[in-house]
Amino acid sequence: MSLPTSTLAYSLKELTGYEKNLVLKESPIGSIGAQEVLVKVHAVSLQYRDLVVARGSYTAPIAENVVPCSDAACEIIAVGNEVKGWKVGDRVCANFCPDHVYGPTNEDINNSALGGQQHGVLTQYRTFPAHSLVRIPDHLSYEEASTLPCAALTAYNALYGPVPIKAGDFVLVLGTGGVSIFALQFAVAAGATVIATSSSDEKLKIASKLGAKHLINYNKTPNWHEEVKRVTKGIGAKHVIEVGGAGTLFKSVKSAKMGDGQVHLIGFVSSEAAESSLVFPIIGGGCTLRGILIGSVAQFEDMNRLMEANPEVTRPVIDKVFPFDKAVEAYAYIESQKHVGKVVIKVA
Amino acid sequence: MSLPTSTLAYSLKELTGYEKNLVLKESPIGSIGAQEVLVKVHAVSLQYRDLVVARGSYTAPIAENVVPCSDAACEIIAVGNEVKGWKVGDRVCANFCPDHVYGPTNEDINNSALGGQQHGVLTQYRTFPAHSLVRIPDHLSYEEASTLPCAALTAYNALYGPVPIKAGDFVLVLGTGGVSIFALQFAVAAGATVIATSSSDEKLKIASKLGAKHLINYNKTPNWHEEVKRVTKGIGAKHVIEVGGAGTLFKSVKSAKMGDGQVHLIGFVSSEAAESSLVFPIIGGGCTLRGILIGSVAQFEDMNRLMEANPEVTRPVIDKVFPFDKAVEAYAYIESQKHVGKVVIKVA
Amino acid sequence: MSLPTSTLAYSLKELTGYEKNLVLKESPIGSIGAQEVLVKVHAVSLQYRDLVVARGSYTAPIAENVVPCSDAACEIIAVGNEVKGWKVGDRVCANFCPDHVYGPTNEDINNSALGGQQHGVLTQYRTFPAHSLVRIPDHLSYEEASTLPCAALTAYNALYGPVPIKAGDFVLVLGTGGVSIFALQFAVAAGATVIATSSSDEKLKIASKLGAKHLINYNKTPNWHEEVKRVTKGIGAKHVIEVGGAGTLFKSVKSAKMGDGQVHLIGFVSSEAAESSLVFPIIGGGCTLRGILIGSVAQFEDMNRLMEANPEVTRPVIDKVFPFDKAVEAYAYIESQKHVGKVVIKVA
Amino acid sequence: MSLPTSTLAYSLKELTGYEKNLVLKESPIGSIGAQEVLVKVHAVSLQYRDLVVARGSYTAPIAENVVPCSDAACEIIAVGNEVKGWKVGDRVCANFCPDHVYGPTNEDINNSALGGQQHGVLTQYRTFPAHSLVRIPDHLSYEEASTLPCAALTAYNALYGPVPIKAGDFVLVLGTGGVSIFALQFAVAAGATVIATSSSDEKLKIASKLGAKHLINYNKTPNWHEEVKRVTKGIGAKHVIEVGGAGTLFKSVKSAKMGDGQVHLIGFVSSEAAESSLVFPIIGGGCTLRGILIGSVAQFEDMNRLMEANPEVTRPVIDKVFPFDKAVEAYAYIESQKHVGKVVIKVA
Repeated sequence: MSLPTSTLAYSLKELTGYEKNLVLKESPIGSIGAQEVLVKVHAVSLQYRDLVVARGSYTAPIAENVVPCSDAACEIIAVGNEVKGWKVGDRVCANFCPDHVYGPTNEDINNSALGGQQHGVLTQYRTFPAHSLVRIPDHLSYEEASTLPCAALTAYNALYGPVPIKAGDFVLVLGTGGVSIFALQFAVAAGATVIATSSSDEKLKIASKLGAKHLINYNKTPNWHEEVKRVTKGIGAKHVIEVGGAGTLFKSVKSAKMGDGQVHLIGFVSSEAAESSLVFPIIGGGCTLRGILIGSVAQFEDMNRLMEANPEVTRPVIDKVFPFDKAVEAYAYIESQKHVGKVVIKVA
Repeated sequence: MSLPTSTLAYSLKELTGYEKNLVLKESPIGSIGAQEVLVKVHAVSLQYRDLVVARGSYTAPIAENVVPCSDAACEIIAVGNEVKGWKVGDRVCANFCPDHVYGPTNEDINNSALGGQQHGVLTQYRTFPAHSLVRIPDHLSYEEASTLPCAALTAYNALYGPVPIKAGDFVLVLGTGGVSIFALQFAVAAGATVIATSSSDEKLKIASKLGAKHLINYNKTPNWHEEVKRVTKGIGAKHVIEVGGAGTLFKSVKSAKMGDGQVHLIGFVSSEAAESSLVFPIIGGGCTLRGILIGSVAQFEDMNRLMEANPEVTRPVIDKVFPFDKAVEAYAYIESQKHVGKVVIKVA
Repeated sequence: MSLPTSTLAYSLKELTGYEKNLVLKESPIGSIGAQEVLVKVHAVSLQYRDLVVARGSYTAPIAENVVPCSDAACEIIAVGNEVKGWKVGDRVCANFCPDHVYGPTNEDINNSALGGQQHGVLTQYRTFPAHSLVRIPDHLSYEEASTLPCAALTAYNALYGPVPIKAGDFVLVLGTGGVSIFALQFAVAAGATVIATSSSDEKLKIASKLGAKHLINYNKTPNWHEEVKRVTKGIGAKHVIEVGGAGTLFKSVKSAKMGDGQVHLIGFVSSEAAESSLVFPIIGGGCTLRGILIGSVAQFEDMNRLMEANPEVTRPVIDKVFPFDKAVEAYAYIESQKHVGKVVIKVA
Repeated sequence: MSLPTSTLAYSLKELTGYEKNLVLKESPIGSIGAQEVLVKVHAVSLQYRDLVVARGSYTAPIAENVVPCSDAACEIIAVGNEVKGWKVGDRVCANFCPDHVYGPTNEDINNSALGGQQHGVLTQYRTFPAHSLVRIPDHLSYEEASTLPCAALTAYNALYGPVPIKAGDFVLVLGTGGVSIFALQFAVAAGATVIATSSSDEKLKIASKLGAKHLINYNKTPNWHEEVKRVTKGIGAKHVIEVGGAGTLFKSVKSAKMGDGQVHLIGFVSSEAAESSLVFPIIGGGCTLRGILIGSVAQFEDMNRLMEANPEVTRPVIDKVFPFDKAVEAYAYIESQKHVGKVVIKVA
């Protein structure tokens, strides 16, 4: 097979919203570095972050005319001449921060994020450094695997940090967004008891099907932290997946197990509500607030082992798949917030 | 209810085998210490250790006319006047070493083992220090709960030591004895992939039903360590539950994951085979051999949380229940090694 | 020796300030429980908390006519009839929360705090449950040992939590209060590089003598978090001992190592400054905020081993010792904030 | 500066002893890979392993005409065109297994050992993959830094494994070989109490100077494990650096702390003594035997931070430095076993 010399890729002309700026362009494929691979992108999954980048509201600098999106499932079609361990035909994901190979992150690593500081994956072809790759578990399709790099790895990093989840723990997940659903699934796989919250009984039904034992509609139970304490017999949640923002953070802290509860702070938190009282419950509860920044290739490999060992309960939940030429519609759909599970673009 | 003033209890007249020495006697119940509880024993489960004690082959000193057995499920019928947190009617187990409350063991703790250095539980009534107690999970019967103190806690301690089991790990359990079955169940609950060995295809079928993914009949596959490496794609088992003895230890070490495999040494290991070559594979494999000494009350409580969160996959496997007056028959049955799962004596 | 039947003890008539309310009274000594010891108190050290309690500003309920103070060094003069492991003449401290024996705290444990929810230690004699005791290291005097229960154990718990300090870590301690100085000493003993801040060059000199390598006067260097990054070559502090409050917390978080920096929240934090921006740097830095609630008997014993192994660099720093009848003056002195190190009352 | 095109390097003609086979040859320097660096070797330190390789007694396959030795301190003189983070002039060590970057080892990694399966470092120039490099701490000379890759990292890996050393632990080091001395120094830096053994009072004096608190001459005290228990007040050593072999292993296990003592198995252990009794004390003591296989680049970097933070107590002990043309004499000297500390060859 002769290699492609050019690729169709989306890019954002300006950062004033995806509607007018997300355009498809053809560009040449550069040479493959000695330690790089060239991949055919098969599927891309969208994050809320992709909307924020397109709106120009992202807090970090964005590459000019950025190729958006961070999460893709790919097939290797060529390997650089010093690459070890990878071959043509291998099914791979690249890590969200390609240079985050192991250990804690740092500023240089953090500045290598795909679809932000550097070009992303909403493209037919691109190269990746070999050190950024993980093998896709055999039982997952490209569409399913495209959901892993950001949402799933964030959930895994939260649950498997310095205080790793143990079978028997109570785990509280807020809402049914991408990270929360993966956290729910991983916690179920790991033998924990999951408590899920949502404003929608329908979404709670899905959480229940995925294995959540306790369901709380926070519209009906606004003091849901008290309900968490009740269903845990006064113990509280050992791990809290906090994705909701300032309005929820105080209650998340109050939901956490005294003495060693772990509240994992994830994603785009609104700062409207006053938080001057936050410090007291953290000290008073002896609990921990941990900022989560996705994760490393090493953690990605660990996560894939978890998924391979527990395929039934960890299969990625996909809400809808769009074709490559409907990327704008896919963005609009994720903006509508109607989905439960991931929204994926299949790349031709 | 007026409290009993005497109890029927088995004791061993001499340590020359259970057949002639295991006798039932009535004796007065002493006063209840300020920090003690008086319990009605409902069920007792037998260990291989109980046979060894009766034969006089146990390595530690044995109390004179020892009341045998270490594992019981009980109901509190009276509490000492300084006891906090326990009340009449509570369903409890006492820890194997009643004074092992938390942290690593030590010689004093180790010398407090029930049914050995001090009198055990094959009795209608006895007192326990309040600090030795754990609450029985609601979903377990007394018969089921009686199996926990020795076999289950040993398995839990092995899997949740300094390198705790993670979802996705490979776990190898040798045989289908009490510890191995609990380890299998706990590993399944925790999302690991279990490999089980046995000399019997029937026993392997039971292991499969309990959730083992890979089954190895070591009579048909004498080099089972190579099979372990094969089914783990060359990785090896992260945790090995080694209960078999010198004949198996070398192969267990060879089965372990290079670099950080954990081989847990449990129980009565035969020392017939030469082991001069053992040190080399441990260093060569960079793996760890960890001696396991049951566990603490704190670990017991953690284990119960695991069981409560995963009731279906962790229900104790009971082979047969004997009435209190058939204790000798129960000993004989366990000696016959026909059982899979625990042998229990129901106390009238 | 016949045992005393009454004791002189201070108590707070009302919670409107120590000046008029801290009075000395004689009261009978009750009987010794089966699992209790009777001690002669030799020395008591004061905390900022003791002032807050006396002012009625403490957030938890206070026992009526409370005997104040939590930290004492004592000698056992009688033991209850079921006590194991302790004898007359043993030198001991009781834990801040006497029922916090091991593991994470909980609400019941937290409500057992001395000199607050229950009567404290500013008394000649009192009883303690045996489970609350730790042995005083041989090389420490009673005065020195009296400083350990609150300030030292808090510092130890911070440094030896789920992410324990390692030799080579950078540790940032804010100010030269009791917890900060112990944290400085323990970090030096553990082979870490300590950065200390203060508004006083004189106090920084003391920090330097105790082993701090980098000194920052935050009056002269208001953006001290940038200086922390500079002296750590851009890495940041792995552990931050945050005792200062809302004004410093934002900078503490910015001082922490990206990816796995640990900011330990300790004590009475002022909430004046806005904190709405706190969540962002925690997520952006991938760091951890951990509320610290003193610690357990088990941690106390570990801490004492650290001190015994490193006596020169961990000797408690005592600023001034007052006699028993000058307790009011001792309170006034601690209120003046002129001290570096602990203020101790020697009990006659 | 124009780059060298050839290098003088030692190689072993045959594996029948260094005396006749260790010869110096000139050979061309190949091209520099995109992710490689070319270094000038400044100093090489010798291991006992280098003798064993030369004798043909090594257990792993050896490259033909192998350039011997694994440990070197180097200066980068050219960098490949895709290398990030390294520049000409940087002072570096390469890791013992250059491909062991992070996490546990595996067979592929293990087969990349320098001076064994692949050519080593007793040469003027050679290339290394960039991922194998660590920066030399500023305060160390090339001679000192050459001692780190094998002996120091092995000691570090032992002390900082899944049960990391804590200030206050008792650490037992057997003998005064390279690994033992580094373990002694690192344990002192980390605030532990060190017990050292030797057959020579002179060597014990050196151990004492380096910070060991308890000294045992095992010729005079053959039951040294009892002495270890005595000086630790019955507790035993939390960490044992076991380098001596089968004759000592039983006693090492008996010296370890019950319940969680860690015996680290290192290096070339003789297997002469019977070990059939080894399994019993491991179970009976509830202790852990951990095979140590040097370590990763990530651990190497951690170790260097420890050394930078504690320069006085961790300075490498060098016994003697030989010039490059006296490599055979250096081998003979190490064979004589007269040294305390490392033997280094300075490369012209």
